[in-house]
Amino acid sequence: MPDPSLLEAFETPSDTPFVIEHVAEEFTSLCPKTGHPDFGTVTVRFCPRARSAGGTCVELKSLKLYLQSFRNEGVFYEKVTNLIRDDLAALMNPVWLVVRTDWRGRGGIRSTIVATRGEVPPDQRD
Amino acid sequence: MPDPSLLEAFETPSDTPFVIEHVAEEFTSLCPKTGHPDFGTVTVRFCPRARSAGGTCVELKSLKLYLQSFRNEGVFYEKVTNLIRDDLAALMNPVWLVVRTDWRGRGGIRSTIVATRGEVPPDQRD
Amino acid sequence: MPDPSLLEAFETPSDTPFVIEHVAEEFTSLCPKTGHPDFGTVTVRFCPRARSAGGTCVELKSLKLYLQSFRNEGVFYEKVTNLIRDDLAALMNPVWLVVRTDWRGRGGIRSTIVATRGEVPPDQRD
Amino acid sequence: MPDPSLLEAFETPSDTPFVIEHVAEEFTSLCPKTGHPDFGTVTVRFCPRARSAGGTCVELKSLKLYLQSFRNEGVFYEKVTNLIRDDLAALMNPVWLVVRTDWRGRGGIRSTIVATRGEVPPDQRD
Amino acid sequence: MPDPSLLEAFETPSDTPFVIEHVAEEFTSLCPKTGHPDFGTVTVRFCPRARSAGGTCVELKSLKLYLQSFRNEGVFYEKVTNLIRDDLAALMNPVWLVVRTDWRGRGGIRSTIVATRGEVPPDQRD
Amino acid sequence: MPDPSLLEAFETPSDTPFVIEHVAEEFTSLCPKTGHPDFGTVTVRFCPRARSAGGTCVELKSLKLYLQSFRNEGVFYEKVTNLIRDDLAALMNPVWLVVRTDWRGRGGIRSTIVATRGEVPPDQRD
Amino acid sequence: MPDPSLLEAFETPSDTPFVIEHVAEEFTSLCPKTGHPDFGTVTVRFCPRARSAGGTCVELKSLKLYLQSFRNEGVFYEKVTNLIRDDLAALMNPVWLVVRTDWRGRGGIRSTIVATRGEVPPDQRD
Amino acid sequence: MPDPSLLEAFETPSDTPFVIEHVAEEFTSLCPKTGHPDFGTVTVRFCPRARSAGGTCVELKSLKLYLQSFRNEGVFYEKVTNLIRDDLAALMNPVWLVVRTDWRGRGGIRSTIVATRGEVPPDQRD
Amino acid sequence: MPDPSLLEAFETPSDTPFVIEHVAEEFTSLCPKTGHPDFGTVTVRFCPRARSAGGTCVELKSLKLYLQSFRNEGVFYEKVTNLIRDDLAALMNPVWLVVRTDWRGRGGIRSTIVATRGEVPPDQRD
Amino acid sequence: MPDPSLLEAFETPSDTPFVIEHVAEEFTSLCPKTGHPDFGTVTVRFCPRARSAGGTCVELKSLKLYLQSFRNEGVFYEKVTNLIRDDLAALMNPVWLVVRTDWRGRGGIRSTIVATRGEVPPDQRD
Repeated sequence: MPDPSLLEAFETPSDTPFVIEHVAEEFTSLCPKTGHPDFGTVTVRFCPRARSAGGTCVELKSLKLYLQSFRNEGVFYEKVTNLIRDDLAALMNPVWLVVRTDWRGRGGIRSTIVATRGEVPPDQRD
Repeated sequence: MPDPSLLEAFETPSDTPFVIEHVAEEFTSLCPKTGHPDFGTVTVRFCPRARSAGGTCVELKSLKLYLQSFRNEGVFYEKVTNLIRDDLAALMNPVWLVVRTDWRGRGGIRSTIVATRGEVPPDQRD
Repeated sequence: MPDPSLLEAFETPSDTPFVIEHVAEEFTSLCPKTGHPDFGTVTVRFCPRARSAGGTCVELKSLKLYLQSFRNEGVFYEKVTNLIRDDLAALMNPVWLVVRTDWRGRGGIRSTIVATRGEVPPDQRD
Repeated sequence: MPDPSLLEAFETPSDTPFVIEHVAEEFTSLCPKTGHPDFGTVTVRFCPRARSAGGTCVELKSLKLYLQSFRNEGVFYEKVTNLIRDDLAALMNPVWLVVRTDWRGRGGIRSTIVATRGEVPPDQRD
Repeated sequence: MPDPSLLEAFETPSDTPFVIEHVAEEFTSLCPKTGHPDFGTVTVRFCPRARSAGGTCVELKSLKLYLQSFRNEGVFYEKVTNLIRDDLAALMNPVWLVVRTDWRGRGGIRSTIVATRGEVPPDQRD
Repeated sequence: MPDPSLLEAFETPSDTPFVIEHVAEEFTSLCPKTGHPDFGTVTVRFCPRARSAGGTCVELKSLKLYLQSFRNEGVFYEKVTNLIRDDLAALMNPVWLVVRTDWRGRGGIRSTIVATRGEVPPDQRD
Repeated sequence: MPDPSLLEAFETPSDTPFVIEHVAEEFTSLCPKTGHPDFGTVTVRFCPRARSAGGTCVELKSLKLYLQSFRNEGVFYEKVTNLIRDDLAALMNPVWLVVRTDWRGRGGIRSTIVATRGEVPPDQRD
Repeated sequence: MPDPSLLEAFETPSDTPFVIEHVAEEFTSLCPKTGHPDFGTVTVRFCPRARSAGGTCVELKSLKLYLQSFRNEGVFYEKVTNLIRDDLAALMNPVWLVVRTDWRGRGGIRSTIVATRGEVPPDQRD
Repeated sequence: MPDPSLLEAFETPSDTPFVIEHVAEEFTSLCPKTGHPDFGTVTVRFCPRARSAGGTCVELKSLKLYLQSFRNEGVFYEKVTNLIRDDLAALMNPVWLVVRTDWRGRGGIRSTIVATRGEVPPDQRD
Repeated sequence: MPDPSLLEAFETPSDTPFVIEHVAEEFTSLCPKTGHPDFGTVTVRFCPRARSAGGTCVELKSLKLYLQSFRNEGVFYEKVTNLIRDDLAALMNPVWLVVRTDWRGRGGIRSTIVATRGEVPPDQRD
């Protein structure tokens, strides 16, 4: 079951703004209708708040364990994406955040979902 | 025959804006002049209205069946693209919608058609 | 319905052996179980008999029309491949013949079927 | 000889704006200096006027025949591109039009020429 | 738990030899040491016996369900590969059979395992 | 018109056997049925005889001019390939020779023709 | 140990603005938690000040030696990126500067970090 | 020795603005420090002035000879790029001009230098 | 320092022959002449002896640690490759073994070294 | 001027046979007819004699300097390839040797030349 308590954050190392992107190519969950597995890539991109403002970054291994907690969960593409966005926004309260999921496809159709939080610069929205 | 009644929608899962893209690489219809089959990829990209505003998303399997209903229809590239745009806009009334068709080509010329509805952000127009 | 009478052949232009390969990337038929369309690539490779021995080559446009005749036929991958092999072997009686089908996949599994006739040289079998 | 009378147009199918792109990868003409053949790709991208405003689209087969009419013409890269732009603008009077030619190169130098008409949106200029 | 009883076979459609390859790109199991998920591609390639000799082919959907039954099983790369080879050989008794697994890697090392049964032709061994 | 008299050869520089391959990616001729242009790549691969045995190699610029002489000739794929093979074999009398043509395709079918002369080693036949 | 004293700069050759990008694909450091090596690509992109304003550019060999000085240092992705940005900004005082690190990944997750200094033009931020 | 007198220009064929790009993939010069050869690609992109305003375009063969004149010159990456920009700007006085050099790399670091003249549109700066 | 005592093996899971390949893309050592780091990919491919004959396979994590032990060792390409071959052959006594190293290159030259032990089948030698 | 005295060899590190390949992607010489530069890749592949039989390997930096000595030499493709083969064979007296040159092309034709010495295994000839 998706478990946000697995997520951990560490203090951001800088007061100047920067951008972090993590691409997890081995995401899998289950289709809530058929029970068949879905496979996809989850991209997390964000700008942490400044260190002096209490900015934090998600810790990489905790992100991996959190994403693994969807393995046997029946959940739609759109729901997964919004859920990860909400959990990471609650953890880090970043300046902005993008969560993108790219799914390998079912029935000949590949899908991509993008959910955001905050003012994402135009060149970071995809 | 293209049949918009095959399309179904479900309630969007979020009140915050997000973007959905479906890429169907196995589209085929017939050339109305020669009767020969055309093959192409149909990309559907949209931003659903907020859940609280009655926003909906096209259901994936119904989209697949709708696209299959063009299989033995004689119809021009430009017409297919505008038709799919109109049918999906009528179904979901989204904030914005892009329908793009990429055709494998006839006589050494590959074609792409892009039809939109609403205010599409610049980085989502292609 | 698959129609071998659509196939035509022309006299091979040479008495010295040579190899011809045609790759049709726009093949489609139907799954006999579900009725859903299958999409694939059909590769036909052969060595015609010598001109003096009555050798012939399949004519390109007739091959295209023959492959199009599978469009609304419900037929398994393995059957399609063996059928095309048999029809082309009957048409041309070539020294050797390879028919290979590569399918875009169903349920996350891509398939390839290779059927042959005659003594195919090792480097031409794939 | 380049022959614009080969070009034909059909009535655009919609009153809402959309974009059409045709990519002809098999263009050839002659170098006016050396007589050697040049090979390239011609991309035509445009936004037709609304149907109610008399908007038209170039017909695909007529575009193919028009491009073939350059086959034995000695003409510079820059001239070809401006000529195709002028002929298509005269035919369709589109909202905007981009003609791009990509040449395979002579003497180790590949060239690209882009000519436009009207107010081309920034993301469509390349 | 890996469950060979999920596998089904159908009668091969031909008396002449041919080759079938299925590539399942969405395989996942668990590392028996760490419990972390492994991701890989499973390739199954075989030559069925002749129809007159009782030859059979594995049915595609049953193969998919069988491969899904490894999802929550802790099992080493080498064991998975040998197990699939044994289960498919028992099901079909083919002329020859190749099972190849390609793993996305752990700790910067990607692995491939190939197990065979019968006399595999040299060009089919990889 | 294809003109073998354009071909020139120079004395091979060595008595030890070696292999030469020329790949001309800008070949064009006409379809004898429709008059439409065909585009393809011509690959010429050969092993010249030893210098002491009067071995020669085709000169590169003369090969280019010879291939250009097909530009406005209506000729089938199979005929072009056999013709180039015969003309080059007559010019150089090589130990072995392979001529391969790869055509961009008509009606969704790409074709490859391979004609040889002499005992071509297995790894050079494709 | 990362050693900024290894960095050297030379006088920029021009008073008109221009852009320099160096891509070092062979960067390696250690994970401070596990001690295992990390591998990545470091991209440095900047606009030097005008020559008349004392503008300088980092010398290529000194950049290489500086990057090599991280080889046996235990340091997080985010820290490495901010450190290189600070050291290069201190060396050159450029108009703007981008440092981007792309890491090959640990546990199935690839990461990218981008740190900047000054007003970076939008098309140079990635 | 770099010789701008090799450059020739011809009258631009149009009064409407257009864009020309030449990509020379076979550039080589020498490192002024070590004497070892450097290899790279030079891209020249510009918008000529209108014909009625005396606009000119660099002639392709003269550009090739000019670039070849750097072959045995010891010169830094940054200097080469600024020099070519200055010589072409002096020749054509274009509306805008971009010169980009991409170097194959020394010591594991690939470099790119971009120098401009005039008001380059944002989408043409890279 | 390269340390073969880090290598561990486990009992092979089968009596029938099979093939294992591990590809480590993150190998690094030092050039014994200049002290500069070398980067490369190490491929290990082998056929273990049958289980009943005491066959073993190298354990993946131990292979990783063994390869990491070259990190600060000054050693030539050829020596590294022969050393890994000898250490793995001593560990497993396999039916056959291939060790291949692909180096990113120094001074514009990329290198590959292949060392073997036992009778390697022709299709496994590269 | 091509200078074989630049070549140096070192004692091979092993008595068991192995294979070494060096790929130099930055080779350039001059066309003896036109004086224009040619650009290509030189691949050197060989099996050194056993150490106990006095086997040697070409030293990498000396190979680089030797290849650079062709920079301003006017010499045909075929001659370059045979010359490098002869010089390296004289230096190392290897069990077998392959020299392959891949040229970027002139007039739309890319060329490859392969010269060998000794009994080259079939899978190493390309």
